[in-house]
Amino acid sequence: MAEFDLIDLLAARCAMPRVDVVLGIGDDGAILAPPPGEHLVVVTDTLVAGVHFPLSTAPFDLGWKALAVNLSDLAAMGATPLWASLALTLPEPSRAFVEGFADGFATLASRHGVALIGGDTTRGPLAVTVTLHGAVPSGQALRRDGARAGDAVYVTGSLGDASAALQVLLDPAAGEVDARLRARLDRPDPRVEAGLALRGAASACIDISDGLVADLGHVARRSGVAIELDVDALPASPALFEALPDRVPRRAAQAAGGDDYELAFTLDPAREAAMRARDGGLGVTWTRIGRVVEGEGVRLLDRHGHDIVLPRAGWEHFA
Amino acid sequence: MAEFDLIDLLAARCAMPRVDVVLGIGDDGAILAPPPGEHLVVVTDTLVAGVHFPLSTAPFDLGWKALAVNLSDLAAMGATPLWASLALTLPEPSRAFVEGFADGFATLASRHGVALIGGDTTRGPLAVTVTLHGAVPSGQALRRDGARAGDAVYVTGSLGDASAALQVLLDPAAGEVDARLRARLDRPDPRVEAGLALRGAASACIDISDGLVADLGHVARRSGVAIELDVDALPASPALFEALPDRVPRRAAQAAGGDDYELAFTLDPAREAAMRARDGGLGVTWTRIGRVVEGEGVRLLDRHGHDIVLPRAGWEHFA
Repeated sequence: MAEFDLIDLLAARCAMPRVDVVLGIGDDGAILAPPPGEHLVVVTDTLVAGVHFPLSTAPFDLGWKALAVNLSDLAAMGATPLWASLALTLPEPSRAFVEGFADGFATLASRHGVALIGGDTTRGPLAVTVTLHGAVPSGQALRRDGARAGDAVYVTGSLGDASAALQVLLDPAAGEVDARLRARLDRPDPRVEAGLALRGAASACIDISDGLVADLGHVARRSGVAIELDVDALPASPALFEALPDRVPRRAAQAAGGDDYELAFTLDPAREAAMRARDGGLGVTWTRIGRVVEGEGVRLLDRHGHDIVLPRAGWEHFA
Repeated sequence: MAEFDLIDLLAARCAMPRVDVVLGIGDDGAILAPPPGEHLVVVTDTLVAGVHFPLSTAPFDLGWKALAVNLSDLAAMGATPLWASLALTLPEPSRAFVEGFADGFATLASRHGVALIGGDTTRGPLAVTVTLHGAVPSGQALRRDGARAGDAVYVTGSLGDASAALQVLLDPAAGEVDARLRARLDRPDPRVEAGLALRGAASACIDISDGLVADLGHVARRSGVAIELDVDALPASPALFEALPDRVPRRAAQAAGGDDYELAFTLDPAREAAMRARDGGLGVTWTRIGRVVEGEGVRLLDRHGHDIVLPRAGWEHFA
């Protein structure tokens, strides 16, 4: 099977017509008509086998996740998804693999109206890079640098599920992974609707890929503020309580586990009630977990205001 | 060295200010202001170690080439380069490697006014994916599907040098590679200026990455025409004559060797004289090598009009 057949196969399974795609896959590049008067947001993320996903990940789930992690970045910017480019590196050509991958990618792409505009398939160790484009009205993108002392800190959904799933997968002595946790690891649900709803309201926003504390560290640094988090306020799913009944590892998964793909954001707390009353809200639950104060760094506090030191400070790909 | 340090290092060495970059590296995504009333062109290409470049490639050259192959795709579309995203996967963090890579990337980026807007560094087998953005006035992009019977076929520069260099490199019995050939393999000079000059003139255009015959096969198929090439007209450098004095391997390198990164294009031959007389021309030599006729496929003909069969029909990454 030649490179060109793989791209045709991807293109056929990822057909999402958009009027702003003047010319899609099949030439040296795609030709696109950006929305007039809007800014473009461009994000790119690579997933490498054995580093960013377990080797046992199903092709469907890998296709889904490769797009999902990029949609999550767009969500954190408050952008409407538009177009994706896909670079897929495979050890050997496999029609079954590419079909499964394309189906996972296309299922999520279709949900968010994303057109696949370009692809490059190459031979090599399994890895995927997606570059995703979105649009946002000029000046309205959510950024990391707008948090101000006095804002409250919030997070969507719940924390730690993907990290708990990965811990079980990597432990040969552990049993089967809870299906609810495994789904959070393999098929994250990017908070695109929440990102759009937060435009013009949140003062800063970031998606949680490396762990809550590490990612909010970027917000604190870029905004020139400190962030205090209340550990007992961090949202947890029932499945997480079952998988990690002990408090310390559960808190570590919530505060430092990666792969959550929730949005953490800061907001003037006076606006919280209006946001909650809004029709549709953020399309997902969201929880107040802390506050922005003067200073620098991120502190995790217990109910007595004492610092909690976690066993692990967050995920860095080269750490 | 953490992922974030690598990105900072890349960003610092690839600083190319552009007013259309509203927000560059450092947030979840870049914010960009596309040129009003123009179309965007987006291209993406991956280079995998041992597949697309020899393991002996210097970091500087890899940085250069990763951008060059994408600039070549933009050139084939007639687009002005704007912004690049870079996904770099490294087996282990190395400051020396990243500095060399960034210098090669930045040297070529600066020559073409390209801003680095995003980066992702990950751990894994050495590979680079670049997604590059360009702009073109609406409706003026060069495409593969416009060749018409009666057009002549042209190519910029010369053919086969990179392929000859690779043959020597892969042959343990061969001596040192000629430096002129090695430069063509490691630091291709993308024909951006030629692509811009061909807007509104060429009926079809493609860049030669997989080999002249294979790439013109895409033009023939997309345009619904046949192409006849005169083997004796294919341009060769003096270094190629020295490296491959025998006619058969030399012709194979010219017609089927990959990695040339020249532009092949079709043009109404009545326009050739005016194009050559134009101030600046294409910024590079260009040679008439054949003609577009009714039918399908690409034929390579000797001076008597007989078909030449090459030892190898072009490069496919999964063949």
